Amino acid sequence: MGGNSFGTLFRITTWGESHGKALGVVIDGCPPRIELSPEDIQEELNRRRPGQGKGSSPRREKDRVEILSGVFEGQTTGTPISLLVWNEDVDSGPYEQLKDVFRPGHADFTYQAKYGIRDHRGGGRASARETVGRVAAGALAKKVLKGEGIEIMAYTVEMGGIRAERRDFREVEKNPFRCPDPDAAEAIGRKIDEARLRGDTLGGVVEILVRGCPAGLGEPVFDKLEADLAKGLMSIGAVRGVEVGAGFQAARMFGSQSNDPPVPGGFSKNDSGGILGGISSGADIVLRAAVKPIPSISLEQRTIDSSGRPVSLRIQGRHDVSAIPRITPVGEAMVAIVLADHLLRQRTLKKE
Amino acid sequence: MGGNSFGTLFRITTWGESHGKALGVVIDGCPPRIELSPEDIQEELNRRRPGQGKGSSPRREKDRVEILSGVFEGQTTGTPISLLVWNEDVDSGPYEQLKDVFRPGHADFTYQAKYGIRDHRGGGRASARETVGRVAAGALAKKVLKGEGIEIMAYTVEMGGIRAERRDFREVEKNPFRCPDPDAAEAIGRKIDEARLRGDTLGGVVEILVRGCPAGLGEPVFDKLEADLAKGLMSIGAVRGVEVGAGFQAARMFGSQSNDPPVPGGFSKNDSGGILGGISSGADIVLRAAVKPIPSISLEQRTIDSSGRPVSLRIQGRHDVSAIPRITPVGEAMVAIVLADHLLRQRTLKKE
Amino acid sequence: MGGNSFGTLFRITTWGESHGKALGVVIDGCPPRIELSPEDIQEELNRRRPGQGKGSSPRREKDRVEILSGVFEGQTTGTPISLLVWNEDVDSGPYEQLKDVFRPGHADFTYQAKYGIRDHRGGGRASARETVGRVAAGALAKKVLKGEGIEIMAYTVEMGGIRAERRDFREVEKNPFRCPDPDAAEAIGRKIDEARLRGDTLGGVVEILVRGCPAGLGEPVFDKLEADLAKGLMSIGAVRGVEVGAGFQAARMFGSQSNDPPVPGGFSKNDSGGILGGISSGADIVLRAAVKPIPSISLEQRTIDSSGRPVSLRIQGRHDVSAIPRITPVGEAMVAIVLADHLLRQRTLKKE
Amino acid sequence: MGGNSFGTLFRITTWGESHGKALGVVIDGCPPRIELSPEDIQEELNRRRPGQGKGSSPRREKDRVEILSGVFEGQTTGTPISLLVWNEDVDSGPYEQLKDVFRPGHADFTYQAKYGIRDHRGGGRASARETVGRVAAGALAKKVLKGEGIEIMAYTVEMGGIRAERRDFREVEKNPFRCPDPDAAEAIGRKIDEARLRGDTLGGVVEILVRGCPAGLGEPVFDKLEADLAKGLMSIGAVRGVEVGAGFQAARMFGSQSNDPPVPGGFSKNDSGGILGGISSGADIVLRAAVKPIPSISLEQRTIDSSGRPVSLRIQGRHDVSAIPRITPVGEAMVAIVLADHLLRQRTLKKE
Repeated sequence: MGGNSFGTLFRITTWGESHGKALGVVIDGCPPRIELSPEDIQEELNRRRPGQGKGSSPRREKDRVEILSGVFEGQTTGTPISLLVWNEDVDSGPYEQLKDVFRPGHADFTYQAKYGIRDHRGGGRASARETVGRVAAGALAKKVLKGEGIEIMAYTVEMGGIRAERRDFREVEKNPFRCPDPDAAEAIGRKIDEARLRGDTLGGVVEILVRGCPAGLGEPVFDKLEADLAKGLMSIGAVRGVEVGAGFQAARMFGSQSNDPPVPGGFSKNDSGGILGGISSGADIVLRAAVKPIPSISLEQRTIDSSGRPVSLRIQGRHDVSAIPRITPVGEAMVAIVLADHLLRQRTLKKE
Repeated sequence: MGGNSFGTLFRITTWGESHGKALGVVIDGCPPRIELSPEDIQEELNRRRPGQGKGSSPRREKDRVEILSGVFEGQTTGTPISLLVWNEDVDSGPYEQLKDVFRPGHADFTYQAKYGIRDHRGGGRASARETVGRVAAGALAKKVLKGEGIEIMAYTVEMGGIRAERRDFREVEKNPFRCPDPDAAEAIGRKIDEARLRGDTLGGVVEILVRGCPAGLGEPVFDKLEADLAKGLMSIGAVRGVEVGAGFQAARMFGSQSNDPPVPGGFSKNDSGGILGGISSGADIVLRAAVKPIPSISLEQRTIDSSGRPVSLRIQGRHDVSAIPRITPVGEAMVAIVLADHLLRQRTLKKE
Repeated sequence: MGGNSFGTLFRITTWGESHGKALGVVIDGCPPRIELSPEDIQEELNRRRPGQGKGSSPRREKDRVEILSGVFEGQTTGTPISLLVWNEDVDSGPYEQLKDVFRPGHADFTYQAKYGIRDHRGGGRASARETVGRVAAGALAKKVLKGEGIEIMAYTVEMGGIRAERRDFREVEKNPFRCPDPDAAEAIGRKIDEARLRGDTLGGVVEILVRGCPAGLGEPVFDKLEADLAKGLMSIGAVRGVEVGAGFQAARMFGSQSNDPPVPGGFSKNDSGGILGGISSGADIVLRAAVKPIPSISLEQRTIDSSGRPVSLRIQGRHDVSAIPRITPVGEAMVAIVLADHLLRQRTLKKE
Repeated sequence: MGGNSFGTLFRITTWGESHGKALGVVIDGCPPRIELSPEDIQEELNRRRPGQGKGSSPRREKDRVEILSGVFEGQTTGTPISLLVWNEDVDSGPYEQLKDVFRPGHADFTYQAKYGIRDHRGGGRASARETVGRVAAGALAKKVLKGEGIEIMAYTVEMGGIRAERRDFREVEKNPFRCPDPDAAEAIGRKIDEARLRGDTLGGVVEILVRGCPAGLGEPVFDKLEADLAKGLMSIGAVRGVEVGAGFQAARMFGSQSNDPPVPGGFSKNDSGGILGGISSGADIVLRAAVKPIPSISLEQRTIDSSGRPVSLRIQGRHDVSAIPRITPVGEAMVAIVLADHLLRQRTLKKE
C-alpha cells in the first residue's frame, strides 16, 4: 500500500532506487501462453535509454533485462513475472554535495517530510530511472494488446513552445525528439541547443494514440478509462497535466461543436478522443500529457538545506535537457498497462 | 471491481441510477468519533442541486439525505456509513423516445457496447445524478480534513471561453457561476443567455484550491497525490483534462522558470501546485479541470439508432446549459476524498 | 478499508447495525444480463430468518428486501446492485442495561478498545444481523453460479456434540437443524431442549458441499481457493475453525492414505475436498466450519463494566439456543461469493 | 490479481518457481526507519531451510538473501523492499519423467487445468520453495511487530498422530520437530523413522502463539483478525484446516463453558484465542493449522498422464518425510504479516 503497484487485474509492482543495486518489476495477473522473450522487453528498454539524442545525457546504462520467473519455454505461465535490471555505471559521488540540500523542483524536500529519511543518491526512488520497471512491464502489456489488435504510439507534439502542426507518423523515428512534424523537429533541435548553452532545460507535450481498441473497455464510475489513463500518465514524475480528445479545448466549445455524431460503423469526428462515459467507443484513443522541464539545471539556484537555512546550489552531473523523448516509451507503457488491465476486466463480463 | 469504489483507506462505493428508486454511497474506513449530522451532508448536496442559477435546469430534486448506518449519537463509530437519497420527481416519459437511439456525446452507445443492456431512463448510471453519492461522501471527507485544518474550495475560472482574471474568493458565492471575478461572471451570464437561446450548451474550467494541507501526503510511485487527484477529477463525467499547478503552461517554461525555489518555511512561488514528486509540499494545492459542454443540446442532431441506422434527433426534457457551477461541489468532493485517503495512509507510517 | 468489503471481482460491501435504521449490501462487479427478482433474494433471507425452529428466538423480522439499483426490467445491468432491508420490530430497551457492561464472549470490549465508541444496541455492527447483507448478496452469487451449473448446500453435521453419521440430503429440509441424519436430528432436538432449560447455548459444525464446480478456479499463491473460502467462513462471527476435505484428519494420515489417486475423468476418492494446490480439481468441494455456542446465555455471568470494575450480569432478551441452523445459509452465501469471484477471475485468463 | 500478493497496507508480492532462476518478494507499505540487515532475514530463512533434521530432505539450499532496494544505511526508507534468493543446486533431471504425469496430491493436474501450461520442474510455482519469499517478508514483519512488543512463536503440537501434552517452550529448539513436549518429540522421532522406512510421509498440527498483541487489531466484518489469519495460514500449500482458540472443540462446548469471563486487566481464561468479534482482545492469540502429509511418497502410486491414461508412478528425488518442522517459520511469517498489516490499519483510526 506504499503506492508502488498499479493496475487491478494486470497488476505491476515496481521497486528500486536510482543508485541501488537493481531495479525491477513484478507483473501479476498476466494471462498464460503469451510469447515473451528478453528481446521483447529489451527493445522497449532501449527506447527509454539515455544517450540516444540531442537532448539526452551521456550516462551509459546498458539496462539488460533478466526474466527471473513466470516464463517457461518462451511462454508466460500465468504465474508472476519478475523482471530485473542491474544498476551499473553508477557514480554517487556528485550526489554527496546534495545530501543535505533540497534541490528545487525535485522531491528531496517532500520525501524527507514524508519519511524522515531518504536515499539522496541520484534522487533515490524519485529518480526517473524508476520508469525502467514501467517500461519493462509495458512491453508485456503491449504483447497482450497486440494479440487483440491494439497498438499504441507516443510522440512529441510540443517542445520548448514549438508545436507540431502535422502528424506524419513515418517521421517519428527519424528525429531524436520523436516528433511527427519534421519542420517542428528542426526548430526543436535549435531550441534545445539554445537551452543547453544556457544551462537550462525544456518541457513539452507528448501525445499518445491508441489504434484498434474495441468498444467496451473502461468501467464506470470511478474507473473510467480516461480516469485510469490520467492516473497512469500523471504518475510519471514530470507530467503536470493530462487531457483526452479535445481536452482543454473542449471547455471552449459549444455542445453542438463538441459532440461527435455517431454514424454507421463509428463517429463522424473524434473530439471525444475515443472514450464516451468512461468507456472506449471503438474510435482512436487520443491523449496528451504536459511534461515540465527537467528540474536539474546547471544554473545557480537558491534553495535551503535540511536544517532550513538558505543556500546557493549549482547542480553537477549528467542530465538531459528535456525528459520528453525518453518519456514517450514510458507514456506508451502506462497506456498499455491500463488498457491490458481493462481488457481483462472486460472479459469478466462475458461467458466463455 | 465494477469501478464503483474509490479510495483505498477512506473508501467510498456509490450506487444508483438517474431514474431508479434511490442513489447512495457507502463509506468504509472513516475514523471513529467524527461528528456528523444529516445537515453536514445536506448542505453540500444543496450546493450541487439544480435549479439554483441561470445555467440550471428546473428539475426540482429535494435530495434529502438519510444516514442509515455508522453514526451513533451524532458521531461516526468506525463502521460503514450508508447514505441514501430517494429519487423523487422522476419522469421517464421524455426518455421513451431515446430508448433505441444513441444520443451524441452521451454514454448510450458505449454502455450498450460494454454490457449488452442499459437503463436508458435519464441516462441511467451514466447520469450526472450519480454524483449525489460523491458529494455526500465528500461532505464527510471534508469533516475529516477540517479536523486537520485542511480546507478545499472550487470555483469557475473559465466558461464559454471567458476567463476569470482575478481570484476574489468573496465573489464566489455571489454569482451563480461561482466565479471569483465579478466582471467575468457578468460576461459569462450573457454568454449563457446566448447559448440557451441557440439551444446550445457551454463548457469551462474549474479550479480547485486546497489550503492548510501539510507536507507529506501522497505516495510514490503510482499513487502520487496528483495522480490520484487526476483520476478523481477525470472520473467526473464531463471532465476532459486535468492539470496541477502551472499544468500545460509548465510545458512551455524553461526549468529555471518552472522550479519553485525553496525558502525557509516554504517556497518563493508555487508553480508546482503544492505537489513535488507526488507528495504534498505544504504549499497550496492548485488543480484545474476542463469541463466539456453538456451533450444534451436542444438543436437537431444526426446520430444512429440501436440497429445502426442513421436517424435525426431532437432532445427534449430539462437540461442545464452548463455543468460547470454544479460541478464545483463535485470537484471539491473528489479532492476531499483523495486527501482524506492520503491523510489516513500517511498515518500508517508513524507510531502513535 | 474498514473491512466491510469482500471479494475482488464480484465484490460486496455490507453496512448496517442491529438496531440502526436498516442494513444492506452493495454488489459491484456482477456481470450483466443475469435475471434477478426480489423473490430470488427473499427466499434466501427467509432461510436465515429467526423463529423458524426449535433452536430459534421469537424475534419477528420480516426482512423484506428492496432492490434499489442495478437491475432493469428484471436483469442485472452491470452497474452496482444495492439491496436494503429495513430494521423493524427493534426494541433497544433490554440493551440499556448493557450500555456500560462488556458481555462475555461478545465483541463489546474489543469494539470499545478499537474505536473508543460503540453502538451497544443489539450488538451494533457486531450482531449476527449483519449477515442479512451477506445472504442477500449470496443469493445473487448463487444465480451467477447456477448459470454455470454450480450448486452449494450447507447442512449441520454436528451439534451439541452429536454427530451426523449419514448424509441423506433429502432429510436436510425436514428437520429444523438442517441435519442430513434424521436420528442425529432427533438427538439434537433433545439436546437443545436440555440446553434451553439450563439457560445455556450450543455450538456445532456446519458442512458445505459444492457440486458442479469446474476444475481451474482459485489462484495461487495467496488467493488459493481454500484460503479465500477459509477467510469467508472465518469471517462469520461464530466460526472458530475451518477445514477442507479431510481437514484436521489429514494431519493424522500417511501420505499414501491422504493422496487422492487421479483416474480417468476424476479422482478415485476425495480427501482433498476438491481443491489441489489452491485450485479446484473438478471434484466436489467439501468444507466444514466449527461454530461456537451463542455467547448470550441466560445464566448469570461474571464480567466487568466499562470502567473495569467486576460486575455480575444476567442477559435478558430474545436469543437463540444455537446459531447453527441459521448459519447454514450464511455459510452457503460466503462460499457462493468466493466461487463467483473466482469464476470471474478465471475468465480473465481466456480469450473470448 | 493473480493471487501473488498478500496484505493491504503491509503488502507483499512473491514470485519465483522451484527450478527457475530465483525467487523473491517485494514488500510495499513498510514504515520507514526500521532497522533491517540481511542477517535479520537470513536467520529466518535458515530456519525454513531443509536438511536440518530427521524429517528433512538432503537438498542443500544456501538461500542467501539479497536486499535489492528500500533499505538505506541499514534502515527502511518507506520505499518498496525487494528481496531475492537465487536458486542453486537445482537438478531438474528427476522431474523429466514427471513432465506428462500428474502426481497424486500435487497441483500438477489443477495447474494444467487452469493455465493450459505449467512449469513441471520441481513443482514450479506450486512448490513449497515458494515460501522463501513469505519467510523473508515475515522477517521484516516480525521486526515491525517487535518494535511494538509483539512476538510470535510456532511449534509442533501433533505429528503422525502423536500429540504434545505439554507446552514447555524451552524444549522447542531442542528437538528437530520444534515440539514443546520432549516425550512427544521422542515418539515422533520413532514415527518418522517408521514412515521413512515405509517410503511414506506424515502430517501434523502446528500451533502458533502471539504474545504482547494489544487489544484493537482486526477489522469487522470481513477482515476479522481470525479471518485474515485463517486465509494466511490456509494459503500455505499443505494446510487443510485452521482454528483459533478452542477451535473445533468450541463446537462441543456449552456457551457457559465457551465464554471467557472478562476480569480487571484481561480475561479469566482464553478459549477465544485472544480474538473477540474479529478484534484482538489483548490476550494471547492462539492458532492451530492442520498440515497434510507431503504427497511425494516413494511408494508406487496409480495416477493418470496428461492425456488421461492410467499410469503407475514411483517418485524419485529428494523429499522430506514431513513438512511440519519447516512449516513452523512459514506459519510465523504469515501470522507476522497479518498482524503487521492490521497494526498499520489500526493506526489510521487515530490522530497523531
